[in-house]
Amino acid sequence: MSTSATAPAPAIVLVRPQLGENIGKAARAMLNFGLTDLRLVTPRDGWPNPAAGPAASGADLVLERARVFDSVADAVADCTHVYATTVRKRGLVVPVVTPEQAAQEIRRQPEPSAILFGAERSGLETEEVAIAGKILTVPINPEFRSLNLAQAVILVAYEWSKQGNVVMPTEIEEREPQATQGQLDGLIGQLEESLDAAGYFHPPDRTPATKNTIRTILTKAHWSNREVQALRGMIRTLVEPRPRKG
Amino acid sequence: MSTSATAPAPAIVLVRPQLGENIGKAARAMLNFGLTDLRLVTPRDGWPNPAAGPAASGADLVLERARVFDSVADAVADCTHVYATTVRKRGLVVPVVTPEQAAQEIRRQPEPSAILFGAERSGLETEEVAIAGKILTVPINPEFRSLNLAQAVILVAYEWSKQGNVVMPTEIEEREPQATQGQLDGLIGQLEESLDAAGYFHPPDRTPATKNTIRTILTKAHWSNREVQALRGMIRTLVEPRPRKG
Repeated sequence: MSTSATAPAPAIVLVRPQLGENIGKAARAMLNFGLTDLRLVTPRDGWPNPAAGPAASGADLVLERARVFDSVADAVADCTHVYATTVRKRGLVVPVVTPEQAAQEIRRQPEPSAILFGAERSGLETEEVAIAGKILTVPINPEFRSLNLAQAVILVAYEWSKQGNVVMPTEIEEREPQATQGQLDGLIGQLEESLDAAGYFHPPDRTPATKNTIRTILTKAHWSNREVQALRGMIRTLVEPRPRKG
Repeated sequence: MSTSATAPAPAIVLVRPQLGENIGKAARAMLNFGLTDLRLVTPRDGWPNPAAGPAASGADLVLERARVFDSVADAVADCTHVYATTVRKRGLVVPVVTPEQAAQEIRRQPEPSAILFGAERSGLETEEVAIAGKILTVPINPEFRSLNLAQAVILVAYEWSKQGNVVMPTEIEEREPQATQGQLDGLIGQLEESLDAAGYFHPPDRTPATKNTIRTILTKAHWSNREVQALRGMIRTLVEPRPRKG
């Protein structure tokens, strides 16, 4: 049995964040994908920060519940699984996982998890990475690694949310039922009759191949009956134009 | 042999973007994950926009190559597969896919693809969504749907990049190349003109909805250009019957 229904959502830990605006954007990115446990380690400009609220665009509850800690160790003291987000390799011999792999693990692990994000420019210190059991690296364009804090948070939150969505939107749920073969044959028959009356089928020896083409074209569309009936109305109007009013 | 190595990267189409800063951030998000084809449809403040560069944080080549178009139809005229990004349902009966599903499709499809993103607040117009064959929806927290433009772009770009790192199942698509959006627009335009001349569009206030329906019906068929041309010949014959011989 999967534990995904009960595995706790991860805490997002921003380590020495500089701009309140970025804290707000991170909160917004979290709430977009259902995360609410925000932890701040020695934010540069203190906490609360008036610049955070506007940037959160309504994710106020995440900011209101945010907790401040003096160190990474304090911030993750209650967590069992800690991931350090970094795009750089650190010379530490710890496993490196993608956001997807981390999300899959967090969904399976019944103990609390935390994901660390470093300061905007300097990132995480080696000692901070060492607190984490694993490095989380976003597989990014090696020639352009400029990923900002909120973007890193949103990708991780997105993957966490995604791994929990067992039932994803599917094409089938959004579709009307497809027309029956009989309904489709009605359209094909009407079109062929109309084309025949208009002199479309010539030379006669090509007619069977042309009719196969017509059937193929109209079959592959997988129309609903509503759409089939709309097309029949269009053909009828083209063949017998309506009198202009006014 | 998989076609994923040669499937073209999608174009990112920003429709009526308001802030140059957001265009820059979108460019940065694109380049983070290897996308470079940025297209702008009537950007509010014109183009180039001095606010875009600083926000791009070094993704200058994306901005330099960006192209401006007068309409969505023009912007995607060379593309076969068009996705409209929206979190809202539109009453249009088109398939809805996730970023992951869209990325998987784009990686498989040998023809060019484009992904539309609406203006910051207003999003895409229904007519613009109708140009797309599919709706791309990010599965987001239903209670907090505040996803900004660059965040939507980065999630889509991330999934595209990610799917390229996956060994795709070998799916050789034995089929004709699909018609471009421009070829399809030729068919739609001809049909609408013919229907208009035959008095099909009435009452006038229903015409935009009816045209959206027509576009949806003809888009979902995924016809080849050969099939599109065959249909154009049929319409022509229905409107102007050929003289009977014998």
